[in-house]
Amino acid sequence: MKYNPLKMPKRTILGPGPSSANQRVLNAMSLPVVGYLDSAFFDLLDEIIPMLRHVFKTKQKVAIVSGAGSAGMEAGFVNLAQKGDKVVICSYGHFCERQIMMAERLGLDVIPLRSEWGKSMDPNILQAVLEKNKDVKLVSSIHAETSTGVLQPVDELAKISHKFGAFFMTDVVTSLSGSELYFDDWGIDYAYGGSQKCLAAPPGISPVCISDHALNYIRNRKILPSSWYFDLSLIIDYWYDKQPHHTAPVNMVYALREALSLVMEEGLENRWERHKNVSAGLRAGLLELGLDLPISPDDRLDQLTVIKIPDSIDDVDLRNQLIENYSIEVGRGLGEFQGKVIRIGLMGESCNPSNVFQLLNALEKILPRLGWEVSSGNSLNEASREFNKRSINSNL
Amino acid sequence: MKYNPLKMPKRTILGPGPSSANQRVLNAMSLPVVGYLDSAFFDLLDEIIPMLRHVFKTKQKVAIVSGAGSAGMEAGFVNLAQKGDKVVICSYGHFCERQIMMAERLGLDVIPLRSEWGKSMDPNILQAVLEKNKDVKLVSSIHAETSTGVLQPVDELAKISHKFGAFFMTDVVTSLSGSELYFDDWGIDYAYGGSQKCLAAPPGISPVCISDHALNYIRNRKILPSSWYFDLSLIIDYWYDKQPHHTAPVNMVYALREALSLVMEEGLENRWERHKNVSAGLRAGLLELGLDLPISPDDRLDQLTVIKIPDSIDDVDLRNQLIENYSIEVGRGLGEFQGKVIRIGLMGESCNPSNVFQLLNALEKILPRLGWEVSSGNSLNEASREFNKRSINSNL
Repeated sequence: MKYNPLKMPKRTILGPGPSSANQRVLNAMSLPVVGYLDSAFFDLLDEIIPMLRHVFKTKQKVAIVSGAGSAGMEAGFVNLAQKGDKVVICSYGHFCERQIMMAERLGLDVIPLRSEWGKSMDPNILQAVLEKNKDVKLVSSIHAETSTGVLQPVDELAKISHKFGAFFMTDVVTSLSGSELYFDDWGIDYAYGGSQKCLAAPPGISPVCISDHALNYIRNRKILPSSWYFDLSLIIDYWYDKQPHHTAPVNMVYALREALSLVMEEGLENRWERHKNVSAGLRAGLLELGLDLPISPDDRLDQLTVIKIPDSIDDVDLRNQLIENYSIEVGRGLGEFQGKVIRIGLMGESCNPSNVFQLLNALEKILPRLGWEVSSGNSLNEASREFNKRSINSNL
Repeated sequence: MKYNPLKMPKRTILGPGPSSANQRVLNAMSLPVVGYLDSAFFDLLDEIIPMLRHVFKTKQKVAIVSGAGSAGMEAGFVNLAQKGDKVVICSYGHFCERQIMMAERLGLDVIPLRSEWGKSMDPNILQAVLEKNKDVKLVSSIHAETSTGVLQPVDELAKISHKFGAFFMTDVVTSLSGSELYFDDWGIDYAYGGSQKCLAAPPGISPVCISDHALNYIRNRKILPSSWYFDLSLIIDYWYDKQPHHTAPVNMVYALREALSLVMEEGLENRWERHKNVSAGLRAGLLELGLDLPISPDDRLDQLTVIKIPDSIDDVDLRNQLIENYSIEVGRGLGEFQGKVIRIGLMGESCNPSNVFQLLNALEKILPRLGWEVSSGNSLNEASREFNKRSINSNL
């Protein structure tokens, strides 16, 4: 029996993630495997640590959890709280609800703090809950909720949590290297990211950052974290002291190194700026088409734009036309937003004017075919004007 | 700032794993990322399922756990038992002790069943324990213990477990596609493997197989598994019904497909045979050098050979010489075997006569330098004679 070498289609991935990976990152994945206790691999970990610290803006400890972003999520609850501990979970989207499910399964005493989807949360409601519950061990949140396209005020939430002596953790899967993030200055205790979004590497590992305060707690717990695989103290011991733990995903770590090199070369602040500017072009074009962008300008994410689908259009038809005729993947609505919105990711490698033009062009063609008249056929011009205004090279 | 593209040394990896990956597998890692809900990716999962079934020799369900082999290990305990359940863990090596640690952290009522390291376990002692403890929910074991180089009689252990109504799980990280394994015929309920050993892909994912009986139990548990990330019913729902769960490690799945294609092309039974024949050549050469192979011929693994280090030699010196002068990685002794043995892996891509010759040649040079006289300088000839006897092409 003979199998042809695998082929995969080249998509324009403009969904909520994974995002396209940079070719240099993909090439690094093909380097030869070395042992996870090989000195050459230890050198690589030592090279990655300061780069990871830079993207988290921290002087504290960084590492990776060997799994998806959801693995980084679970590691947070496993390590920073234990059975019966009170945990407040701020919930304003689909992935916050996942946090609640996880924490409940672990036997934590979850206080869900639900606020309106699509809006930035009012930090005062956290203050009020913590005033009523003085013994909360951990407050959890999501920085950039990909289901709603909203950036949340995690700096303020962290401050309030600390005032009441609770640990503060946040999900930065979608924000890491795409939105401003200051782990130390904001006083975050634990943040977990994903390799596959603004970092522009394939999915499979979750870069994490942990405060000394939180690590100290984990190291001194009387009851060990219920998961050996996710025990952050053991993972940190591997990264910093080269103590064996599980076999590291060697080639994914190669990809991470290459992805981080690209962030360093571009400059982290420039990369944040690129996400801001390119998405401004997208929004200008979408508005010119007459589409409704329901998230308030004050709250919205740059790397993920939510479009309300015109009532007459079926979201599945729209997404199918995009993927089948233009090989463009966009995201569907989740939870409360199901069937009502599509979500456009412009993350990392995917975040460039050419993808914006591709998408606008496709929408200009598809929407009338689905029976919805676009306001004007000048969306590409509008995007281009916005790029010029922001001195973004449209050929980027 | 400019970073040079990552370079990694090309090692001859003859340790306990990870093992070298085939170049076609590595190349597949560089294919473009697609979404984990993309129809092209679903097609890929559907292509992989029958291949994975073939290597497990099963008609039941297969999938991957998105993490190291230890993640597959933890998934077993999380799903097949719950807090307070009695679990018997057969322990005859380092990784069995890891199972015990994991299960204890999860709050399971662990009955460790320890037997001598380096020996195959007597199934009668399991029978005796189960006679005394009628309410055991799960029996766990390791098929090929990489710390001791011993193959264990999991077929018999499974049979006894079922007689007493317990689930039976086993670790096939090192055995999968390197040793005979019949998931269905042996009556295993859950087995987890690793991508990075005899399958010859990079580390990072754990192929798993689960019986309908066990899956049925998981689906009907009143208390959900404490880990959302490792919930095997949700993972199976993703693989078979394409229900979203966590973001799959897309490019690692590409690697798995390519690695499985190579197994299918070689033929699973031929691959088992190759591991047997190549390691026979290694053993012939090692014995010719006068080295002691402490594991009994009846019990020993083919893909991992344990060598007793001569008393006068320091194991660190020996391993350093191998890696520094010959770029050959071998494994150190673990636990009770620390400092006393080295472990030679011949797995998947690494399992070929040329690696055997490289290693024997290096040992012929290094051992006298460390003050130990080898019996003869004909170890390569002996290996070669063994390969000829077994009709193995030495240029493989």
